[in-house]
Amino acid sequence: MLEDKIKNTIRDVIDFPKEGIIFKDITPILEDVRLTSEITDALVQKSKMLQPDAIVGIESRGFFWGILMAQSLGVPFIPVRKKGKLPYKTISYKYDLEYGSAEIEMHEDAICEGMNVLIHDDLLATGGTAMAAAELVNSQNANVVGFTFLVNLTFLEGNKRLKPYTNNIISLVNY
Amino acid sequence: MLEDKIKNTIRDVIDFPKEGIIFKDITPILEDVRLTSEITDALVQKSKMLQPDAIVGIESRGFFWGILMAQSLGVPFIPVRKKGKLPYKTISYKYDLEYGSAEIEMHEDAICEGMNVLIHDDLLATGGTAMAAAELVNSQNANVVGFTFLVNLTFLEGNKRLKPYTNNIISLVNY
Repeated sequence: MLEDKIKNTIRDVIDFPKEGIIFKDITPILEDVRLTSEITDALVQKSKMLQPDAIVGIESRGFFWGILMAQSLGVPFIPVRKKGKLPYKTISYKYDLEYGSAEIEMHEDAICEGMNVLIHDDLLATGGTAMAAAELVNSQNANVVGFTFLVNLTFLEGNKRLKPYTNNIISLVNY
Repeated sequence: MLEDKIKNTIRDVIDFPKEGIIFKDITPILEDVRLTSEITDALVQKSKMLQPDAIVGIESRGFFWGILMAQSLGVPFIPVRKKGKLPYKTISYKYDLEYGSAEIEMHEDAICEGMNVLIHDDLLATGGTAMAAAELVNSQNANVVGFTFLVNLTFLEGNKRLKPYTNNIISLVNY
C-alpha cells in the first residue's frame, strides 16, 4: 500500500530543527523514482475532481510535488516563497509562529480573480504556513479549492486551522 | 524556437536583489504549462547521453526542473540546500560571494562512490554555487558528468569556473 511505502521511506530525524522534535525527512522519497511518481499520481488522482486552475507550492519542499502535480494536471505552478525571495511586485502575509513570526510572499500577478487554486506542501503541522498561503489566494479574490500534503501530523490539528478555507484537505500519510 | 520562447517569457526585474542588477525572473515560465514541459524535454534530451545516475538540484529554483528531469530520466533526485535546512547528517561546502560567503549542504548518504551526477540549477551566473555543488559531489568520490541550466549569463563567465569539473555545461538560453 502506498501509505506504508511512504512511511517506510520517510526518515525520522530526532531533535531537528530543535530538541524534542522528531522531523519527518522526505528526501529519501526523492531518491526513489517509482515512489516519487506513485505519490504524484495519487495526489493528482485525489485532487483532479477539485478541478484546480493552478497549483500553489510552498517553498521549498512544496516545490517538489507541486510542480510534478501541476505538470500532470496541466495547470500553472505558482511558487509561494519566504519574504524577499521573489523578484517582482509581491503580496505578502505575516503569521505567528511558536516563537516570533514568519512572512510569505506571492507575485501580485500570479493569480487572477475567480481562479480555483490548490495549495500544496509536503507536510501539514500546525497549518500556519498553509493558512498564510490561503490568505494570499483569498486576497486576490480567488478560491482555495483544496490543500494537498504528503504527510499530516494530525496530533497538531492543522486541519482545524485550514477548514475555514475548504473541507478538501488531502494527505497521503497521517501520523 | 525554444530559446526565443524562453527569452520572451522570462521577466527582467530591474535592481533586484540590489541596485544595478537586472534579475532574470523565471516564474512566468512556471505558469506556462507547455513551455515548462518543453524545457524539461529539451534538458532531458541534451543530458540523456551523459547517462547520469542522479540529478542534484540546487535550492530553490533548481528544484523545479531538477525534479522534472529526474522523473523523466528515471533517476533519483538529490536536493542541495542552504546550510541548516537538511535534517539528517550533512556534508557542506563554503564558498566566497562578492560580499561575504555562503555555505551549501547535501545529505552525507545521498550520493554513493562512483555515481555519475548531473547538477542542475535555473541560472548560471558566476558559477559559485554550481561549483560548490560539484565540490560536494567530488568529495563523495562521485563524478560530475554535466551541468544544466535554463539560462547562462555568459558575460559573467561561469563556464570558466565549472570547466575543471566537466566540459558538459548545457544551457538553453544565453545572454
